[in-house]
Amino acid sequence: MVVRYTGRYGSPSRLAGAAGTDELTFIEPFIDDLVATGATFAFLALPHGVASEYAVDLLENGIRVIDLSADFRLRSAAVYEEFYEHPHPAPELLDRAVYGLPEFYSEEIVKADLVASPGCYPTSILTPLVPLLEQKLIDPDSIAVSSLSGVSGAGKKADTSLLFAEVNESLRAYGAPKHRHLSEIEQELSIASGKEVRISFVPHLMPVKAGIATTIFCHSAIDLVGLSAAVEKTLQDRYGDSPFVRIRGEGVFADSKHVVGTNFVDVGWVVDSRTGRLILSSAEDNLGKGAASQAVQSFNLMNALPESCGLLNF
Amino acid sequence: MVVRYTGRYGSPSRLAGAAGTDELTFIEPFIDDLVATGATFAFLALPHGVASEYAVDLLENGIRVIDLSADFRLRSAAVYEEFYEHPHPAPELLDRAVYGLPEFYSEEIVKADLVASPGCYPTSILTPLVPLLEQKLIDPDSIAVSSLSGVSGAGKKADTSLLFAEVNESLRAYGAPKHRHLSEIEQELSIASGKEVRISFVPHLMPVKAGIATTIFCHSAIDLVGLSAAVEKTLQDRYGDSPFVRIRGEGVFADSKHVVGTNFVDVGWVVDSRTGRLILSSAEDNLGKGAASQAVQSFNLMNALPESCGLLNF
Amino acid sequence: MVVRYTGRYGSPSRLAGAAGTDELTFIEPFIDDLVATGATFAFLALPHGVASEYAVDLLENGIRVIDLSADFRLRSAAVYEEFYEHPHPAPELLDRAVYGLPEFYSEEIVKADLVASPGCYPTSILTPLVPLLEQKLIDPDSIAVSSLSGVSGAGKKADTSLLFAEVNESLRAYGAPKHRHLSEIEQELSIASGKEVRISFVPHLMPVKAGIATTIFCHSAIDLVGLSAAVEKTLQDRYGDSPFVRIRGEGVFADSKHVVGTNFVDVGWVVDSRTGRLILSSAEDNLGKGAASQAVQSFNLMNALPESCGLLNF
Amino acid sequence: MVVRYTGRYGSPSRLAGAAGTDELTFIEPFIDDLVATGATFAFLALPHGVASEYAVDLLENGIRVIDLSADFRLRSAAVYEEFYEHPHPAPELLDRAVYGLPEFYSEEIVKADLVASPGCYPTSILTPLVPLLEQKLIDPDSIAVSSLSGVSGAGKKADTSLLFAEVNESLRAYGAPKHRHLSEIEQELSIASGKEVRISFVPHLMPVKAGIATTIFCHSAIDLVGLSAAVEKTLQDRYGDSPFVRIRGEGVFADSKHVVGTNFVDVGWVVDSRTGRLILSSAEDNLGKGAASQAVQSFNLMNALPESCGLLNF
Repeated sequence: MVVRYTGRYGSPSRLAGAAGTDELTFIEPFIDDLVATGATFAFLALPHGVASEYAVDLLENGIRVIDLSADFRLRSAAVYEEFYEHPHPAPELLDRAVYGLPEFYSEEIVKADLVASPGCYPTSILTPLVPLLEQKLIDPDSIAVSSLSGVSGAGKKADTSLLFAEVNESLRAYGAPKHRHLSEIEQELSIASGKEVRISFVPHLMPVKAGIATTIFCHSAIDLVGLSAAVEKTLQDRYGDSPFVRIRGEGVFADSKHVVGTNFVDVGWVVDSRTGRLILSSAEDNLGKGAASQAVQSFNLMNALPESCGLLNF
Repeated sequence: MVVRYTGRYGSPSRLAGAAGTDELTFIEPFIDDLVATGATFAFLALPHGVASEYAVDLLENGIRVIDLSADFRLRSAAVYEEFYEHPHPAPELLDRAVYGLPEFYSEEIVKADLVASPGCYPTSILTPLVPLLEQKLIDPDSIAVSSLSGVSGAGKKADTSLLFAEVNESLRAYGAPKHRHLSEIEQELSIASGKEVRISFVPHLMPVKAGIATTIFCHSAIDLVGLSAAVEKTLQDRYGDSPFVRIRGEGVFADSKHVVGTNFVDVGWVVDSRTGRLILSSAEDNLGKGAASQAVQSFNLMNALPESCGLLNF
Repeated sequence: MVVRYTGRYGSPSRLAGAAGTDELTFIEPFIDDLVATGATFAFLALPHGVASEYAVDLLENGIRVIDLSADFRLRSAAVYEEFYEHPHPAPELLDRAVYGLPEFYSEEIVKADLVASPGCYPTSILTPLVPLLEQKLIDPDSIAVSSLSGVSGAGKKADTSLLFAEVNESLRAYGAPKHRHLSEIEQELSIASGKEVRISFVPHLMPVKAGIATTIFCHSAIDLVGLSAAVEKTLQDRYGDSPFVRIRGEGVFADSKHVVGTNFVDVGWVVDSRTGRLILSSAEDNLGKGAASQAVQSFNLMNALPESCGLLNF
Repeated sequence: MVVRYTGRYGSPSRLAGAAGTDELTFIEPFIDDLVATGATFAFLALPHGVASEYAVDLLENGIRVIDLSADFRLRSAAVYEEFYEHPHPAPELLDRAVYGLPEFYSEEIVKADLVASPGCYPTSILTPLVPLLEQKLIDPDSIAVSSLSGVSGAGKKADTSLLFAEVNESLRAYGAPKHRHLSEIEQELSIASGKEVRISFVPHLMPVKAGIATTIFCHSAIDLVGLSAAVEKTLQDRYGDSPFVRIRGEGVFADSKHVVGTNFVDVGWVVDSRTGRLILSSAEDNLGKGAASQAVQSFNLMNALPESCGLLNF
């Protein structure tokens, strides 16, 4: 085929000739024009604060919204302001929004008209921990998390710290002790355990394009002898029917390359009997289950499609 | 889902839970058992020499074969012996085999029962050059090629030279002056130009997992003033209807990351008027168009499916 | 220069022509031949168990030894057997050996004839923690460590898991909960705190050639308000005169690329007041301060040379 | 040590504590202040055009200059203007400048007060070719070059094309057919062959931080039977006493990881008897022999120091 580049949106590069790209059209995002397209659904991938402006207008026009920003993930405008350092732009919508983790909120997502897709790190942390807290297998005051992420998590910014020459052959932590994602992580962990939970969370920037691998330290709340079997049963019961959570079992450490390009979250664990800790391991694609494909998973639920529609071919 | 590993074929890792993996079965490749499955088609991904053994048996049993080894790519058993350093194991099949480059041999592939899928580098070299030689735009005695490949081209071998610590932050040529792929490259270039063609070819091992980027130097055979337009017309005429060859145009250098994970070959060029050379640039996925997806493309033709069936979603 | 390769030890490759390489000679390591060279000093870079055999002979012949294996790091033959899964080959030497961390044992190293250089991860963990435990600033029962390492830590082994294609674009934990290095880490932390200490430790394999970055979670044992200043003072007092420990300060996360190729250990920290934890960050070159250059640092002390001789030019 | 960052020049990061860094002072580059320091020598690492301004002033004040920009590499102001697209800022200095390739111009460099250090790619191309052209072993009209470079060659620019996410797992050519370095490459090749030489040159951006690997295609001008021996003799005669050119021999392909961090250039070759070509392979560190360490090598000559002073320890 011949690839000719016209229009103002740059060269199609990788996607030129891919199925369906001919049918893509691009317009300026003026609300009247968006409504005039007849669209019934919108995905928002905009900066915090900006997303809210669009969400308000779209909802008023009867268009359902999945927002990938942080604007509607939190239930409390005060917590939003504490972590994002500006007042919440549309607090009246917070009660209407549903946190877009299908494994936990599928019923609500089905009926929602505003879904807030989680940040990249949270899914890898909540997926293993929530069921264990619900079943009171671990001490909610003992949680410390070390997460590793590829650079795409930082966005396509012309920033010297993200240059290849700065990132390759470099390992470094950042964003601690109070990363913004703590707000939604602690919100959900608190719901799961029925009390306020605070955790330590340290993200690290790694020389890969995509992928998150998370290691979670926590203390067992039950007898160590039965811990592993209880963890296995709890995770199997919770996720046995979930098409995207792969319970890898005891002794298995999740590897990000097995999930990048997919909507899967892999989970494994070991019991550290010498210290009484449970150590959980998880991995996801920060751009997949950590963003875009999780949003599509919610879209499927909201449109009465099979939950895994379009998400199992990779 | 819960991922349990039984059987002798290792953990499914990345593909666990992907569409269709439940239905995969594995058997020992004894010919009677293979025939008994009722299969009408076989893909062979075996070492040189070994592939022929299977091919002979499968064909005798009426099973059509796409072979990814080098065993049936060459028309001459003597050339095979020269480059592969052992006698051809089944020379009687050479006339029956079709070189599996759909853009050149689609009619023959449709009817073939034995298709020899090209080596990884050749597709990136033949795609730009064959039409230009057929139209006599370039001098067939002037061709020099520099190709860059990711390490997966070397296979999953426990070889210290392929260790991460040996490959990362390393750039190196290898395999010159007489790489095995020269045999099939020169075979096809000779057919295209109607005379014996010999080229220089230097592959290089690069610190990427997958991808091939090829740079081709050759002298123009026509007036430089009209060269670029003639190149563009020739490539457009040849590939305008080819779903997988993307003609990127003059001044564009193909980038392997735009094709890895796809069946596309990207082609661009510049005219070096100071020396009278044409410099062509191409890129493919060595595991995609350079191997597996090209084999699927041939499969589609052999089974009267749309040529791009299953190959445009990525 | 012309580089000719003779002899049986392979091509000098990178070091050909470097200062002093002409004077290197290689001999088979028979003890009589080693003694006959007149050497007064030996560095051992051998597998566990094998190192002991050589150490015994060399010491008997009056040659002082720095051993880079684990054979003499532990004070207890029983702990060695528990972690290395075979009886200690030369338990009689354990009392004579000095743990080769110059920042802690310089006086003993100066006089020692057998120095056991630490494993790669331990230096990055002990350097920040030991002074804080000695000063009782942190709770010794609260320590959890996440370490990231480049692949050279696994050695130059023809192992498919270490292939570039398996490591690039991959993030994965391994070796938990009972990594061998726990034995020496806990030994030294126990000495520092005056009681038995056990920690959780999870190493991770990262797609870099060299470098270790370590993140340590622990609970403060003192009022949080004064914690950071106390940490700073403790580390400055301890390491102010240490040429190789760089105290980077509060809010700084160590980056492995700043230490690779050097003998430095970088240390930083943050106080997580929301949870009462101190989070420490450190980085070293696993082949440098984590192995070879630390051994040279000990060598300098043992030979009455300036401690940083040959170790500050990089 | 404690690393405190004061002043306006950022954190010393990697070099903190390295030998001699305490003595570094930084001042604004006003010519009177520069002269007042009593400096007798200046290295310029400035953009093209800007370097000339400083060079003029420094030379007038009797300070000898090594310039790492392109401003004084060319002998012709007209060629400079053709390639750099602006008039030469100080053409009167061109006759005074010496091209900073010590292996070719050591006598001139010793006496020079203005040395123009070559661009990164040229050294890897000139080192193998110049002696072969002088000895008329190859056809000067047949040269085509493919060079691979790490990203540091592009500088520390906040440019999205240089982001890790854009560079990792990507292979791409660029800058052809008329890269700026052609001007100095062809200048020197023309001098070597005694006639005007033009070559084709295609650089490629590779996912490594540093290193250049170059592959050169050219036709033999002598009988192929004697070519390899003649190449070996010519290169040995020319470089036998050169401490930084390592002649690796026939059949050896230079690997950039063996030279990165050093001032070495490695050279190897193969004879492609099937086409009558000689294929040369070379490698250097683009920041080393391609820039800074080559400048130091010239500095040593200009100051009557041993040529390899400070350049053989790595």
